[in-house]
Amino acid sequence: MIIQLEKDISTSQYKELTSRLTDIQYDINRVTTQFSDYVIAVGKKEFDIRTIGTLNGIEDIHRVSDAYKLVSKKWRVQDTKIDLGDGVHIGTGDFQIMAGPCSIESEEQIEQTVQHLLDNNVRIMRGGVYKPRSSPYSFRGLGIDGLKLWYKKASEAGIKIITEVMMVEQIEQMMPYVDIFQVGARNSQNFNLLDALGGVDKPVLLKRGISGTIDELLQAAEYIFSNGNERIMLCERGIRSYEKAYRNTLDINAIPLLKEKTHLPVIVDPSHGIGVRRHVAPVALAGIMAGADGIIMEAHQTPEKAFSDGQQTLSFGESKSLFYKMRETFKFRENL
Amino acid sequence: MIIQLEKDISTSQYKELTSRLTDIQYDINRVTTQFSDYVIAVGKKEFDIRTIGTLNGIEDIHRVSDAYKLVSKKWRVQDTKIDLGDGVHIGTGDFQIMAGPCSIESEEQIEQTVQHLLDNNVRIMRGGVYKPRSSPYSFRGLGIDGLKLWYKKASEAGIKIITEVMMVEQIEQMMPYVDIFQVGARNSQNFNLLDALGGVDKPVLLKRGISGTIDELLQAAEYIFSNGNERIMLCERGIRSYEKAYRNTLDINAIPLLKEKTHLPVIVDPSHGIGVRRHVAPVALAGIMAGADGIIMEAHQTPEKAFSDGQQTLSFGESKSLFYKMRETFKFRENL
Amino acid sequence: MIIQLEKDISTSQYKELTSRLTDIQYDINRVTTQFSDYVIAVGKKEFDIRTIGTLNGIEDIHRVSDAYKLVSKKWRVQDTKIDLGDGVHIGTGDFQIMAGPCSIESEEQIEQTVQHLLDNNVRIMRGGVYKPRSSPYSFRGLGIDGLKLWYKKASEAGIKIITEVMMVEQIEQMMPYVDIFQVGARNSQNFNLLDALGGVDKPVLLKRGISGTIDELLQAAEYIFSNGNERIMLCERGIRSYEKAYRNTLDINAIPLLKEKTHLPVIVDPSHGIGVRRHVAPVALAGIMAGADGIIMEAHQTPEKAFSDGQQTLSFGESKSLFYKMRETFKFRENL
Amino acid sequence: MIIQLEKDISTSQYKELTSRLTDIQYDINRVTTQFSDYVIAVGKKEFDIRTIGTLNGIEDIHRVSDAYKLVSKKWRVQDTKIDLGDGVHIGTGDFQIMAGPCSIESEEQIEQTVQHLLDNNVRIMRGGVYKPRSSPYSFRGLGIDGLKLWYKKASEAGIKIITEVMMVEQIEQMMPYVDIFQVGARNSQNFNLLDALGGVDKPVLLKRGISGTIDELLQAAEYIFSNGNERIMLCERGIRSYEKAYRNTLDINAIPLLKEKTHLPVIVDPSHGIGVRRHVAPVALAGIMAGADGIIMEAHQTPEKAFSDGQQTLSFGESKSLFYKMRETFKFRENL
Repeated sequence: MIIQLEKDISTSQYKELTSRLTDIQYDINRVTTQFSDYVIAVGKKEFDIRTIGTLNGIEDIHRVSDAYKLVSKKWRVQDTKIDLGDGVHIGTGDFQIMAGPCSIESEEQIEQTVQHLLDNNVRIMRGGVYKPRSSPYSFRGLGIDGLKLWYKKASEAGIKIITEVMMVEQIEQMMPYVDIFQVGARNSQNFNLLDALGGVDKPVLLKRGISGTIDELLQAAEYIFSNGNERIMLCERGIRSYEKAYRNTLDINAIPLLKEKTHLPVIVDPSHGIGVRRHVAPVALAGIMAGADGIIMEAHQTPEKAFSDGQQTLSFGESKSLFYKMRETFKFRENL
Repeated sequence: MIIQLEKDISTSQYKELTSRLTDIQYDINRVTTQFSDYVIAVGKKEFDIRTIGTLNGIEDIHRVSDAYKLVSKKWRVQDTKIDLGDGVHIGTGDFQIMAGPCSIESEEQIEQTVQHLLDNNVRIMRGGVYKPRSSPYSFRGLGIDGLKLWYKKASEAGIKIITEVMMVEQIEQMMPYVDIFQVGARNSQNFNLLDALGGVDKPVLLKRGISGTIDELLQAAEYIFSNGNERIMLCERGIRSYEKAYRNTLDINAIPLLKEKTHLPVIVDPSHGIGVRRHVAPVALAGIMAGADGIIMEAHQTPEKAFSDGQQTLSFGESKSLFYKMRETFKFRENL
Repeated sequence: MIIQLEKDISTSQYKELTSRLTDIQYDINRVTTQFSDYVIAVGKKEFDIRTIGTLNGIEDIHRVSDAYKLVSKKWRVQDTKIDLGDGVHIGTGDFQIMAGPCSIESEEQIEQTVQHLLDNNVRIMRGGVYKPRSSPYSFRGLGIDGLKLWYKKASEAGIKIITEVMMVEQIEQMMPYVDIFQVGARNSQNFNLLDALGGVDKPVLLKRGISGTIDELLQAAEYIFSNGNERIMLCERGIRSYEKAYRNTLDINAIPLLKEKTHLPVIVDPSHGIGVRRHVAPVALAGIMAGADGIIMEAHQTPEKAFSDGQQTLSFGESKSLFYKMRETFKFRENL
Repeated sequence: MIIQLEKDISTSQYKELTSRLTDIQYDINRVTTQFSDYVIAVGKKEFDIRTIGTLNGIEDIHRVSDAYKLVSKKWRVQDTKIDLGDGVHIGTGDFQIMAGPCSIESEEQIEQTVQHLLDNNVRIMRGGVYKPRSSPYSFRGLGIDGLKLWYKKASEAGIKIITEVMMVEQIEQMMPYVDIFQVGARNSQNFNLLDALGGVDKPVLLKRGISGTIDELLQAAEYIFSNGNERIMLCERGIRSYEKAYRNTLDINAIPLLKEKTHLPVIVDPSHGIGVRRHVAPVALAGIMAGADGIIMEAHQTPEKAFSDGQQTLSFGESKSLFYKMRETFKFRENL
């Protein structure tokens, strides 16, 4: 059960509420986000929620039987919109593209990519400065210095930055230079990292685990929300299956299911979702047709020379063509 | 290596060809289909194929390194078109819808469905008269009598029939009443059934196995082709994964991959591909955007009362709306 | 609900029973096997089974809520023993080894293998004469002539034969030369084949599907049993997972689960279960420790030269050592 | 390529070595562990390793083509033994049991469990004080205070402690109270945590990811080793598959494969590996027969009342019986 509190609820009103709940053996979790205050009450006893809903100081109350609560559409019917500033919004009705290299490599690469995005009116640039790599002997990214350099160039151009954070200690130093924190598939159940990102007033893009269920993804989002941050988007990036003809199995079914279950925006990553450069485009368009609110994809000035994952990265020419097709597909979908 | 023979190759020319191949220890498989004659030669020795290609009686020759040969696009660049008669074609550029109930249930149901398809200009009706069921105590379909009744009604209305064949013995009796034989997911590696369908001059729709790889699907098609039947279409119908939020995981990646690897038409089954009635539509549209040449889907006058699988079956109203959206999406894709 | 009938139930007693069941809207399936007669009654209405259990002509009655009925241990508590004649039994307490090549290749190979089994007191020889192959251009086995030759040699030596049947039409001609019919993983839901094997009075070894669930395996066995054949054994042979470090993922968990759910013998196939020759032995011993009633495995005089699957086939020397270890492990388990 | 340095290698000798390697464009990674110094040199150029192996200051040199290097058995043939003190060793030939509750709950629970282990001569107690939970509203463990209390009781009794660490910041405070750090399945690719545990001179048990490959597990271990900690053991705890008849699919194949590929000890977790209390025992014994060096399992004084996961936890009576059987099975295996 979720109880949204009025902004000016008094101490005595709050006490009255909690004593009613503890009387019937409900556990109380107080949640304060950048936007509102909530009580998540978990218990087994059946009762008439109107007896609590009519108390003073309470704005709204709903039963939510899902394991996730605040991210559920059963609680909040209206879809979440995330405002990144400068007219950049993410959420139902506002299709957004996030594009850029797997890894931030050099000043020249940053400049070329920023220009490419500007030329094509793409407002959000992706790129990694901390890279999760299977082998300890692989390149792990340029780190905080690369991020600072990137931020300087991108913010001057009005381009927003999304990049992966891998550990709690990185959050504070990355904070001034990041517009969206990305949580990677390998950290999708790194609960301490999720907790910490709940304490940050920056949007978070949460990738589904390598073999994560839809339910686990929503519960991971609940970690962030219940720690105070409502600005979350979910990302389908392919799951691990028995099929090895491509890198990952993009779970197209997850898109309508997520749009039904949660009010959070749903982003699709076709680059990791298939992992085969020449098939990224049809998979991206399929994702939009299935209901995606945005696409995150890899583009590089010379994919063959990219530091990693070049086999799923589009050239600037290919990505320009796909940007156009994706926007047309989104418009077509909205008018169908 | 595939060698397509000229129609009027002489016995001595053929002998010359085969003796050249056996000289270098190649195994020879002669394939005669309803359209042409081929030799599939398999061996290890490297040699200049022009030494054979210039022999008399040979129309074309190609190396194909894939495990499948005749269904490979490396062999035949031009996509296969299947002509069902009465102006109904399946293949690249001709989008086709196949719709109807899971099981054929009654005369009344057939009449209502035929009328629904006529009203919406759908030319192919799906339905099961032999049903593969997990439990031996479940309804297994109306059998050959149901098929005859169905055929009478459908052919009068100019509607084509696609239905599943489960065993070799059924082929002959079903033959006069079927326009497309369907091989179900559970029989996708029933090699004797595939062999037998290779001997039939009727189109075959081959479903991917429940956890079949793309390569296994193409090799299963090779069974049919190499036994003499070139009129094959492939169907992605969802694979088995760890995710249980829906029935099967529609493998959207398989669609561009199959369109790349084979010249055969690719059909998508969104009903089994997600198995959740209210999400069939977005998944169908995604499948088209990814490159599908057709959609096979379940529709029933009263899905709640369908003999089986009602939870993935659309009502006539829902399917009417989806027919329109699918055609619009196909046109949009072709013009993008 | 399962009702076992007395052997001498009269027509009027049977009528009385069925009218009672149809009165409460139960569907009736009469099952006659080589050993007994049953009625499987399926319905929704709750009632006191003693009102039926006390009728004349009824030997036993039980509710079974599982989707499978006659193969359930909830119905039959005592484990099934299969008597192959000549003192060879399969089932709880009688550990059996089935060994031999993937494919029957030649008279010499048969003779060598029979001698190897005789030398090591193994009573059952495996081998394929009809081979399911992914590619139509691969060797598909010696067929019925190979089987006849094999049977002659094996029966002279007192060795029993287990071999795969792939289609209904093969059953009759194979019948005189087979001691156990094997249903392969690709045919585990070939329901017509299962039906037909229900009409045969020969034991059947049923392999789990390539990605078959435990429940599907038990329902497949129910097909055979409910068509009249009680002599069934189940075989765990590895499932398809995302891991590609080996061929299949032997599902060790399935063994205690199957032994709990069914009274049928459970056999483990470590050769396909891991598919890596040098690791077949530890996996076989693990399978026994988990509760297997027998092992089916590949052995060949020269594995490197085997027609197929040589990479999972033991040499005679390796298999001799494993035979010893498996029997010791079985004895150890029984005394632990 | 791995080059083990002599303890007293001089600066000039080291310079000579590295200049030789950089001359041929090899990347150099210097690794210093609690036991030795190594250089991991990665490059593409072929050369005769004896030209380097004969330099002064070099103890050993080997090519290792695997993605993992220092944990490979191609490098170190002799299996790693981990000495926990007080006569407790882990590694080939020393079978160890680690048992205890899912979560540390109370002083009384600790005392009862310690006594149970003492009574049965089990030397290592497992238990969680930081619990990874899918939902943020679930109990997350007693934290550092629980650990201190537990350590006091356990160390007095001579019982070693293994417990999960979830984030880098926890390591330092947990350090004095832990004998083995456990990395959970959800953190198996939390590379920063792995790096940090490489800097600690305490043994680490590394669980395989929920759908981690064997190769990923070995590369995760390489992270720890290459950061300075050689005392690592690997744990097979079941993978995520399509089968839902139990909680996870214990990958029995992984055990002989890991024993072949690495010199590190291999531990099996049958509790999570099947997740069904009444089947933990056969799966544990199978794991030993397949080659496990130890078992980690859940036991609780009253499983029905355990804070979490009670459905896979044995009672003290059940675990006493299993301790005996596991030791007998280990002895049997060693003598077979």
